[in-house]
Amino acid sequence: MDLCYINGSFVPLKEAALPLTDLIIQRGVGVFDSISTHLKRPIRLTAHLRRFEKSAIESGIFLPLTFDEMVSIIREGIDKMNSEAVIRPYITGGDVFDPESLTFTAPRLFIIFQETHKPAPESYAEGVALQPIDADRFMPHTKSINYMISFTSQSKDRKAFEILYTPKGEITESSHSNFFLIRNDSLITAPLNRVLAGTTRELVISIASELNINVKERCPLMEELLQAREAFITGSIKEILPVTRIGEIIIGKGKPGPITSKLHRKYLENITQWLE
Amino acid sequence: MDLCYINGSFVPLKEAALPLTDLIIQRGVGVFDSISTHLKRPIRLTAHLRRFEKSAIESGIFLPLTFDEMVSIIREGIDKMNSEAVIRPYITGGDVFDPESLTFTAPRLFIIFQETHKPAPESYAEGVALQPIDADRFMPHTKSINYMISFTSQSKDRKAFEILYTPKGEITESSHSNFFLIRNDSLITAPLNRVLAGTTRELVISIASELNINVKERCPLMEELLQAREAFITGSIKEILPVTRIGEIIIGKGKPGPITSKLHRKYLENITQWLE
Repeated sequence: MDLCYINGSFVPLKEAALPLTDLIIQRGVGVFDSISTHLKRPIRLTAHLRRFEKSAIESGIFLPLTFDEMVSIIREGIDKMNSEAVIRPYITGGDVFDPESLTFTAPRLFIIFQETHKPAPESYAEGVALQPIDADRFMPHTKSINYMISFTSQSKDRKAFEILYTPKGEITESSHSNFFLIRNDSLITAPLNRVLAGTTRELVISIASELNINVKERCPLMEELLQAREAFITGSIKEILPVTRIGEIIIGKGKPGPITSKLHRKYLENITQWLE
Repeated sequence: MDLCYINGSFVPLKEAALPLTDLIIQRGVGVFDSISTHLKRPIRLTAHLRRFEKSAIESGIFLPLTFDEMVSIIREGIDKMNSEAVIRPYITGGDVFDPESLTFTAPRLFIIFQETHKPAPESYAEGVALQPIDADRFMPHTKSINYMISFTSQSKDRKAFEILYTPKGEITESSHSNFFLIRNDSLITAPLNRVLAGTTRELVISIASELNINVKERCPLMEELLQAREAFITGSIKEILPVTRIGEIIIGKGKPGPITSKLHRKYLENITQWLE
């Protein structure tokens, strides 16, 4: 059963509610993070919670719990779950924005625990499509709740797994993932000043180094997709997911490629190192 | 007392709540509108509700109530209020996004009724400042709940009344208002393909025509601010509010100007025509 930690206790997620006066509802003011478990232990929990704190601070929201308190609640929630879980801590703007300090003075924190649903095996076997949109992601360094465009834009390509932000032909990231292109045996991915600092992005860069694969941190260009051999997206739940089509453009041979598979195998080999 | 119509009845706003499973909380999926009253009658209710319907449809959300049902609930809510009111109908993404139809199949509708708080008299007497940001408004034709950037960006100029979107030096709109510049006796305001179709924007254009003031629908440029005589922003609650500074740039003589005042007087003269 999915759970929620809210107001100091755990309740079934479907019974949890938030006052309508909260600015997360009225004005979209909220940030969150997503943490995945493996063998019922959280993967890179510290990195995720540090990013969560950073998203909050950059939004003028101060966390009402310490780092250690959040860790302890997350461990307790994982224990209560009967399966691998996705854990999503959220912090909201609360009811009040103080124009003097320019901060939200009474934020609400809640943590959702849900059973993990990974992408279907076919998605890994065949690769997925992305729908490019010529736009920047909103506040790219902050994991805000604003994902609305990822729903509304998908209508252009019903088979797309996610949208891909390609402002002026420069590929930054997709709606829920970081993006990597493989060209001439190098991985190419947008630099951190353009995208959310994905924890799996960071792991992939370190695995690539172990495997002696060169990594270039620059935005891949839409115009070089035709020369690309492979592409993939990364995220805590999807891990490393092959991309075989972007808009109308088929990547490489239109099938998941060997470098993507090699990186994913190495990721799975290493995963126990990252459990906390 | 502020009220909320939700789940078929009116409750005190502070008692209204929304399930945490709703995508308006988890993913920022929701649209709304703001309607103001005068003499306890809604101003341009039809235009606002049509825009609300349009925002919803463009977001893949279908309204569970008919237009007439919404009108009737809004009239009932206004009657229950002891003051002039701001009425905000919201529709959320609900818990479910259907990947086949690409729509939100179980949206939630609620309508908030709050006592009107107009900008302070000094804001009209002295004019307000705007904080320019070099960005586009997110989904400009849709009144989505995503206003987070308007809080986080304001920290650059604590005295700013609102932020002003100025992508590549072209002024589109401010976070909660349409923007008008007055240069050489003409009003200049961004065209409808760049901004939210403000109902007060439309009224100002019609008043300008009555007063034989020329209106140019093109984006005012940041580089022409120094040649501007006056500027103002428009909205249902603020009506016509003089702008006397944008970032570091003082507009005209740094005081509200005669054309802005003339338009606002005419607005107030005409207001009873727009009550429904």
